[in-house]
Amino acid sequence: MLGLMQQWPLLCHKILDYAAIQHGSREVVTRSVEGPITRTTYAEIRVRSLKVAQKLARDGFGEGDRIATLAWNTARHIEAWYGTMGIGAVYHTLNPRLFPDQIAWIMNHAEDKALFVDLTFMPIVEKIATQVSSLQKIIVLTDSAHMPDTKLDNVVAYEDWLADADSDFAWKELDENAACGMCYTSGTTGDPKGVLYSHRSNVLHALIAVQPDAMGISSRDTILPVVPMFHANAWGLAHSAPMIGAKLVMPGARMDGEAIYELLDTEKVSFTAAVPTVWLMLLQHLEETGKKLPHLNKVVIGGSACPRAMTEKFQRIYDVEVIHAWGMTEMSPLGSLGSMKPEYAGLEGDAKLDIQEKQGFAPFGVEMKITDDENNDLPWDGETFGRLKVRGPAIASAYYGGAGAEQFDSDNWFDTGDVAHIDPNGYMEITDRAKDVIKSGGEWISTITLENLAVGHPDVAEAAAIGIAHPKWDERPLLVVVAKAGKSPSKDDLLDYLAGKVAKWWLPDDVVFVDEIPHTATGKIQKTTLRDQFRDYSLPGVEAL
Amino acid sequence: MLGLMQQWPLLCHKILDYAAIQHGSREVVTRSVEGPITRTTYAEIRVRSLKVAQKLARDGFGEGDRIATLAWNTARHIEAWYGTMGIGAVYHTLNPRLFPDQIAWIMNHAEDKALFVDLTFMPIVEKIATQVSSLQKIIVLTDSAHMPDTKLDNVVAYEDWLADADSDFAWKELDENAACGMCYTSGTTGDPKGVLYSHRSNVLHALIAVQPDAMGISSRDTILPVVPMFHANAWGLAHSAPMIGAKLVMPGARMDGEAIYELLDTEKVSFTAAVPTVWLMLLQHLEETGKKLPHLNKVVIGGSACPRAMTEKFQRIYDVEVIHAWGMTEMSPLGSLGSMKPEYAGLEGDAKLDIQEKQGFAPFGVEMKITDDENNDLPWDGETFGRLKVRGPAIASAYYGGAGAEQFDSDNWFDTGDVAHIDPNGYMEITDRAKDVIKSGGEWISTITLENLAVGHPDVAEAAAIGIAHPKWDERPLLVVVAKAGKSPSKDDLLDYLAGKVAKWWLPDDVVFVDEIPHTATGKIQKTTLRDQFRDYSLPGVEAL
Repeated sequence: MLGLMQQWPLLCHKILDYAAIQHGSREVVTRSVEGPITRTTYAEIRVRSLKVAQKLARDGFGEGDRIATLAWNTARHIEAWYGTMGIGAVYHTLNPRLFPDQIAWIMNHAEDKALFVDLTFMPIVEKIATQVSSLQKIIVLTDSAHMPDTKLDNVVAYEDWLADADSDFAWKELDENAACGMCYTSGTTGDPKGVLYSHRSNVLHALIAVQPDAMGISSRDTILPVVPMFHANAWGLAHSAPMIGAKLVMPGARMDGEAIYELLDTEKVSFTAAVPTVWLMLLQHLEETGKKLPHLNKVVIGGSACPRAMTEKFQRIYDVEVIHAWGMTEMSPLGSLGSMKPEYAGLEGDAKLDIQEKQGFAPFGVEMKITDDENNDLPWDGETFGRLKVRGPAIASAYYGGAGAEQFDSDNWFDTGDVAHIDPNGYMEITDRAKDVIKSGGEWISTITLENLAVGHPDVAEAAAIGIAHPKWDERPLLVVVAKAGKSPSKDDLLDYLAGKVAKWWLPDDVVFVDEIPHTATGKIQKTTLRDQFRDYSLPGVEAL
Repeated sequence: MLGLMQQWPLLCHKILDYAAIQHGSREVVTRSVEGPITRTTYAEIRVRSLKVAQKLARDGFGEGDRIATLAWNTARHIEAWYGTMGIGAVYHTLNPRLFPDQIAWIMNHAEDKALFVDLTFMPIVEKIATQVSSLQKIIVLTDSAHMPDTKLDNVVAYEDWLADADSDFAWKELDENAACGMCYTSGTTGDPKGVLYSHRSNVLHALIAVQPDAMGISSRDTILPVVPMFHANAWGLAHSAPMIGAKLVMPGARMDGEAIYELLDTEKVSFTAAVPTVWLMLLQHLEETGKKLPHLNKVVIGGSACPRAMTEKFQRIYDVEVIHAWGMTEMSPLGSLGSMKPEYAGLEGDAKLDIQEKQGFAPFGVEMKITDDENNDLPWDGETFGRLKVRGPAIASAYYGGAGAEQFDSDNWFDTGDVAHIDPNGYMEITDRAKDVIKSGGEWISTITLENLAVGHPDVAEAAAIGIAHPKWDERPLLVVVAKAGKSPSKDDLLDYLAGKVAKWWLPDDVVFVDEIPHTATGKIQKTTLRDQFRDYSLPGVEAL
């Protein structure tokens, strides 16, 4: 027997309709790519999104078409998203930090038919547009006065393009499971893989995200999403902010400390979110200038592990609560957030920071488990670590085109590729990437733990741990160390320093000193290159293979 | 093109699973019907709900079967709900405040197959059980030591019934649109009408309810739902509290001021919700004893309009924020909540109370409009009032069995039967019931406004306004007044008092004085009886019809 409740499909344009009706005069402030600060409202954004939809439809685009964006966080980017979704098409955010050839590969794989692009990124588009055969139209997110010279065909200025639209358009009626958004993950190995969001998953993700123990945002907040819309949907904020009617402040192209501070201060931002790198720049700017953050209440930090010292500074010096979060493009992206359960709510100082080093707990709508290599569940004791697997309505069931099928099991559990432990209160901490973890005699050794401990040694600038093949134990740890300038610690110095801090069998079998450790474009240690480099390394006491 | 996101149906038992996994040790405290305070946890409730499911299945109940409850707010009642939903059956809350014959009528209409009943209500069941031919089993929510004598067949004590279950049971896999709950509205006219909730509607309603601008509850809250589970799902709290892992305090059979105060105090309740009558009793108790409410942060008040003086007392004397809310059984029930948008966030004192007299604004997931009798949209200007219509994923699309079809239009808009205005910021205020409003020359006159003004006259104890047929204007207002003891105001006194407070054409054509105004069982003015009483009344200047 079915219930007798209304069929009211969860569609993204209903979020914008809601914002326009209930919070229509709420501002959306943008540091425009052209330079000046611009101001609009949810009501105006809805009208202009309807115009985008109207124009896309007139230009012959429709349901299921992928419409790319290569753009900063701006009001126009939001309009492009909602206009695209409103005709049943799919916004496809491209990451401008990738190499142009990678962007072209992704656009060809997605068969993008149109592209909204910011002025900043026109040089990239000039380079690759002719390589993308599906691409029919390029809309530059500016007005005619700012249009650059271009030899490309089918290029139009956004404001010119919208000029003959009147917004008399009805959002397309859609199945809530229809695709509405797309984002490729740029894994360190293999080709990028596309995640295809649905209207339903985006709406549910936004509902989950606004909860008090998740982002905890309300109509009284002013939200600055520094995290880009091309970085996993700006962690959902382009949907969750209008859903609850919060004022939005969009940082455009500038994410340096001075620019971010200026917006935080002049717009009285109460809530913001970004990766640690952004906050390093901000904290440095604050220290140099002696400025404070009187309006800011909360900062969500994710994308990579938030350093303890950063959390401590935000909270102690600036009285800003830090929410350490974890997620993935495949998860829309929120997976866990470090709000304080009542068990931990009374903690202060180091005891609180101990909990905040973890990535937090999963909200309703995200199921988690940790397993061993045979898919057996592991206990939530805060120590045992295993492969982190997740399930939920805003988590991918497959990649576009079927790549990476091995990451999805028959029960829908998605293997995150991360290794984590979970404490008895549900707080999860990432301890490694599954492909980096060292497997010694059937047990796992966390390379991140070894590295974090090793850099605590006063003479060590950087350290990386990798597994070296071992005839008896399968793998044993090798610690690769860059010494601080003018220092020359010994192998025994390092092993003595680590002794007692980890189980005896975790201690590296050898320590080597190098001038440099290879890094990815985003600054992470490139473990694959390092492993290649030490492929034939012989650990002490082991015959060369 | 469909998205590639997981099919993860929105099922109520996932809420309980989540609570058990992420907030398993969080307490659920009950003032038991037997007397003592009992304590359990979400993890234990889940195990016992699985036992309920296992036993219901063994007893032959299954998908779509209606399982009634006639019970107070207790942990056992929650177990009964989740166990019922977990086999795909439908919990059906019965309102013990109805006449036994009405309860029997409703049970027969719903064809309830089993009944969970509290000790308190056994006398009702003794009276009606044999009238309900579908009823196969009666489970008394107690243990064998407390079982009453009964001559009825198929009666068992809940604890005895559960004793041979081991909880080794898998929740039924269901379509998220499957029915899971049922509640009859007891309209003042006509037969009761059944609302049939789905798993999807309950889960979405809970997600909507926990938002900061709705109930705004987190895992750090301790929640006392005084509003009964048989009163529109306890406003969703039996779903939303476990969804966010809040401690629950269940008041059982006692809702007097002393009993409620005791729970608020000893359990350090931070959030509570109930109708104004309950709070009148509590405030009276506090005034008599001089006690305060140091732990309580927020009280949600709905069910009927919250008097301004009540809001003022909670906020000024006890520093407890009042959220005035409106909803209906047909809406799961939340429709609007009076959190402060930024436009109003700075208000204090009377200016704030002015806003709080309204019933608040709709969260995402509740669409609202006001229309005239021809279904034309009316403006949101805070003055124009019309029929209030609503739409959303947790709003009924029909009544069980097809009654009341005229309340649902082809576009899914549900006519609430209320008359309201909405201000430019979206704050809605109920001004009348549609069937009570007086239609004079095509324009509407609010009876509630006239009544509220009239009782402001120092000599008036109670007042009711009704429409009297008029040859020229269709209807004109008659004011029916009960004078205070020892007072005898005149018609002109009343009209002079009202003059200037309402538009001239709103002034009653006549005022009559009576000894008593008829009331419903719940204390509301019985307008139908009153209209019958004055059916043949001749207004001054009008020939008798």
